[in-house]
Amino acid sequence: MTGFDELRALMGDRFTTAQALREQHAQSETHVLAGLPDAVAFPETTAEVSAILRVAHANRIPVVGWGAGTSLEGHALALRGGITVNFARMDQVLEVRPEDMLARVQPGITREALNTELRATGLFFPVDPGANASLGGMAATRASGTTAVRYGTMRDAVLALEVVLADGTVIRTGSAAPKSAAGYDLTGLMVGSEGTLGLITELTLRLQGQPEAISAAVCAFPTMSEAVDCVIETIQSGKPMARIEFLDPSAVAACNAYSGQSLTEAPYLLVEFHGSAAGVAEQAERFGDIADGHHCSGFRWAERAEDRNALWKMRHNAYPACIASRPGATAIVTDVCVPISRLAEAVEETRADIAASSIPGPILGHVGDGNFHAILLIERGNAAEATEAQRLAARMAERALRLGGTVTGEHGIGIGKLPYMQAEHGAGWAVMGAVKRALDPLNILNPGKLVPQ
Amino acid sequence: MTGFDELRALMGDRFTTAQALREQHAQSETHVLAGLPDAVAFPETTAEVSAILRVAHANRIPVVGWGAGTSLEGHALALRGGITVNFARMDQVLEVRPEDMLARVQPGITREALNTELRATGLFFPVDPGANASLGGMAATRASGTTAVRYGTMRDAVLALEVVLADGTVIRTGSAAPKSAAGYDLTGLMVGSEGTLGLITELTLRLQGQPEAISAAVCAFPTMSEAVDCVIETIQSGKPMARIEFLDPSAVAACNAYSGQSLTEAPYLLVEFHGSAAGVAEQAERFGDIADGHHCSGFRWAERAEDRNALWKMRHNAYPACIASRPGATAIVTDVCVPISRLAEAVEETRADIAASSIPGPILGHVGDGNFHAILLIERGNAAEATEAQRLAARMAERALRLGGTVTGEHGIGIGKLPYMQAEHGAGWAVMGAVKRALDPLNILNPGKLVPQ
Ligand SMILES: Cc1cc2nc3c(=O)[nH]c(=O)nc-3n(C[C@H](O)[C@H](O)[C@H](O)COP(=O)(O)OP(=O)(O)OC[C@H]3O[C@@H](n4cnc5c(N)ncnc54)[C@H](O)[C@@H]3O)c2cc1C
Ligand SMILES: Cc1cc2nc3c(=O)[nH]c(=O)nc-3n(C[C@H](O)[C@H](O)[C@H](O)COP(=O)(O)OP(=O)(O)OC[C@H]3O[C@@H](n4cnc5c(N)ncnc54)[C@H](O)[C@@H]3O)c2cc1C
Repeated sequence: MTGFDELRALMGDRFTTAQALREQHAQSETHVLAGLPDAVAFPETTAEVSAILRVAHANRIPVVGWGAGTSLEGHALALRGGITVNFARMDQVLEVRPEDMLARVQPGITREALNTELRATGLFFPVDPGANASLGGMAATRASGTTAVRYGTMRDAVLALEVVLADGTVIRTGSAAPKSAAGYDLTGLMVGSEGTLGLITELTLRLQGQPEAISAAVCAFPTMSEAVDCVIETIQSGKPMARIEFLDPSAVAACNAYSGQSLTEAPYLLVEFHGSAAGVAEQAERFGDIADGHHCSGFRWAERAEDRNALWKMRHNAYPACIASRPGATAIVTDVCVPISRLAEAVEETRADIAASSIPGPILGHVGDGNFHAILLIERGNAAEATEAQRLAARMAERALRLGGTVTGEHGIGIGKLPYMQAEHGAGWAVMGAVKRALDPLNILNPGKLVPQ
Repeated sequence: MTGFDELRALMGDRFTTAQALREQHAQSETHVLAGLPDAVAFPETTAEVSAILRVAHANRIPVVGWGAGTSLEGHALALRGGITVNFARMDQVLEVRPEDMLARVQPGITREALNTELRATGLFFPVDPGANASLGGMAATRASGTTAVRYGTMRDAVLALEVVLADGTVIRTGSAAPKSAAGYDLTGLMVGSEGTLGLITELTLRLQGQPEAISAAVCAFPTMSEAVDCVIETIQSGKPMARIEFLDPSAVAACNAYSGQSLTEAPYLLVEFHGSAAGVAEQAERFGDIADGHHCSGFRWAERAEDRNALWKMRHNAYPACIASRPGATAIVTDVCVPISRLAEAVEETRADIAASSIPGPILGHVGDGNFHAILLIERGNAAEATEAQRLAARMAERALRLGGTVTGEHGIGIGKLPYMQAEHGAGWAVMGAVKRALDPLNILNPGKLVPQ
């Protein structure tokens, strides 16, 4: 392709058209399979990313960013070919500023690697999507996870960015100041833009102080609404929970089998509190009282680190546990988010819908945010089941909209959620298209995604 | 003007070209005096706002939003004439949803009126810019204030918007779900856009639970750096302060005189903690220990509501107090924000600069955010002093940039900060211009502001 020679001359082996590597970048975590890039680049500097985009822009070649490839809706697939830019070699922590509680990092560093590097500082990076995603990918998808109820999502955690635009121009958005009213929030515009407006080459992240004390608990509820009412009451009482996760009875069953637990098969909450020793004890006690008021049973505290770790390991393994619960299955994981007052209704309707279908689908949720996922389990290669899963996912998305929510709380649009953008945003979707055209008039950045096509 | 008859027919008396009203809308809180609108409209519905913009768009008439007119950089002045849209008659609370901890409001409601309406719900709206601003204006300027250190700014507090675009199209951004990953963050793009991308006709706001207990304290420090180090240590220890405000010695002197206090003339911190009774007591004690370690003196708790109110009344009156400290003076209030590690330096340099100048300028700050203001006091009508104030403000802005900060933490750009946008954002400023052209190609929304002209 025109332009490839120039990039090969610049990057050597780190610009490749080898079939095996191209195919590696044509697969995603999920069922979605499409889009073979023509080349894969492994830049080491912002200047190289800028050069790639300059060349791509001059030759109208599509460019798709690639972090850890863990996104669930086929976000990073090169639908129209072109160059996939894999950030694995830009994975450094550039600076940690403990006094400002922030870190500057390259986009390819993973969340776990970052937290390992931060360990000695007394600080940590809180956003936790379960998967060991890259920070660039997490910003691009506006990821969140179990701790968002306390620490926020990538929208809150990203303070500033360096971004390479479609024509290779490098901009810096935001600053190390904790807030700013100086013009349009370009940082916020880039976060969640899924690589369609620019490639992120550096992130300035807000860190949090490691809590003095942590305590966690599990408890079962007779119904989903009792569990949700317990969550609402806890949040309203101003208790700063760090995590509050929901498992439905079939997710509990899967976790029991996978992690050797023996929890009752009922709606479950897993909670965690962060704070001072006294603060955590007080919060825990209050939560216990509130949960009692909602007829919880099997309440169990995990104050020792090992018990807590076992608990969260079980939660983090819920995804493989669900997959393992049906031999030979693969999963379509689908994600919606509703106002918390509609959560019980949304989950109950979804459960009934799945129960009436031909496939199993355990439900998990970041319940403090009104956010939940169904892990729709289909036989690998079974087209009828795949269609059934798509139908259930579509009904979940429509249900979320009907209840005043969004078709994705955290996984993003990718390919899978594109069909619902018009319904969710109405005329606002065309505005997104106008913004896209303004920043990427040739439509080379992750074309085929996010905006009206 | 073409189009005016149509709007008069539609809105009757609520569309006026009366000189007195036009002049009322050509004044701002500060020295800036420019821009007489040709007409003032007082819409009562979104449909009327849409009609105004449709007509304005067809006739290329500038349109400028007006909330409470308290912005400090001349934001709402109609630099190129046209129609000023005053939202005073769209001031209703449309819905309060306690379970979702949110309220839907019209843009003209003021912060105080909203909190009065919320009183019975156990919830409150935390963003507090001191002035009794409108929620639409606060969103448009990305306002914050004393409580941002705990509850965030308007960026965090606005969940969803209804916006009328330049051509009259009405869009809804965001939803009542607590988070979303469904495409570009148009809510975030509108917040802080100062009426240049659309007019906000409805806001969905996150509310907070009224804390069970509150305690407040004041204490003096030997130096600015001791005060800042105390703040840094408190934040790092994870203490969730609700407010932490700084007054420099001359602001303290002004407050003493105005509010009948007798505080030592030294750098002062005012702090407030929100939480459970036990939690607040614990936080307060720890803060006391940390402050002691930084040689604080005159430490005084205010646990009773009346003492606390006296304290915050003094802080909220700091602006008139400063003005009163120089008879016949008016103020240029200027706002910058830096990384907190550079705050002591930024304030000390600014103090020295003001001390060496011909005018007084007490300094106040939302110190937990690295944000501070100088109240530059000039003789009314004294051009030389006004020039001196501008010079000091310019040096503050440049200093903030040099220290890695922003030229405005919360007041916004308006007219006053436009000269620094290129220096702060570099190539990013042109991106803002591209976004503006995409959404408002005829440049009728608050023209002359925010983007490159
Ligand atoms: C088991 C499992 C559990 C999960 N749980 C959660 C969860 O709880 N919460 C959650 O939010 N997500 C979750 N996810 C989804 C996934 O981890 C997130 O979407 C994550 O943010 C993707 O990051 P990544 O580095 O893998 O990005 P990729 O998959 O590599 O890319 C994602 C998107 O970002 C773009 N991109 C990547 N890097 C850049 C860059 N530097 N600049 C610009 N664009 C870029 C890509 O083009 C693509 O559009 C889960 C995934 C798995 C497999
Ligand atoms: C004594 C004093 C103290 C202050 N302290 C603070 C502080 O601590 N923190 C802080 O952030 N600010 C502070 N301010 C500044 C001011 O209160 C804020 O900027 C506030 O957000 C302005 O709101 P307003 O309703 O008065 O807006 P206006 O001044 O009426 O308008 C501000 C801007 O918003 C636009 N606008 C207004 N309504 C709409 C709408 N519905 N849709 C679209 N655009 C609209 C206008 O066109 C204009 O550009 C202070 C001001 C004073 C006088």
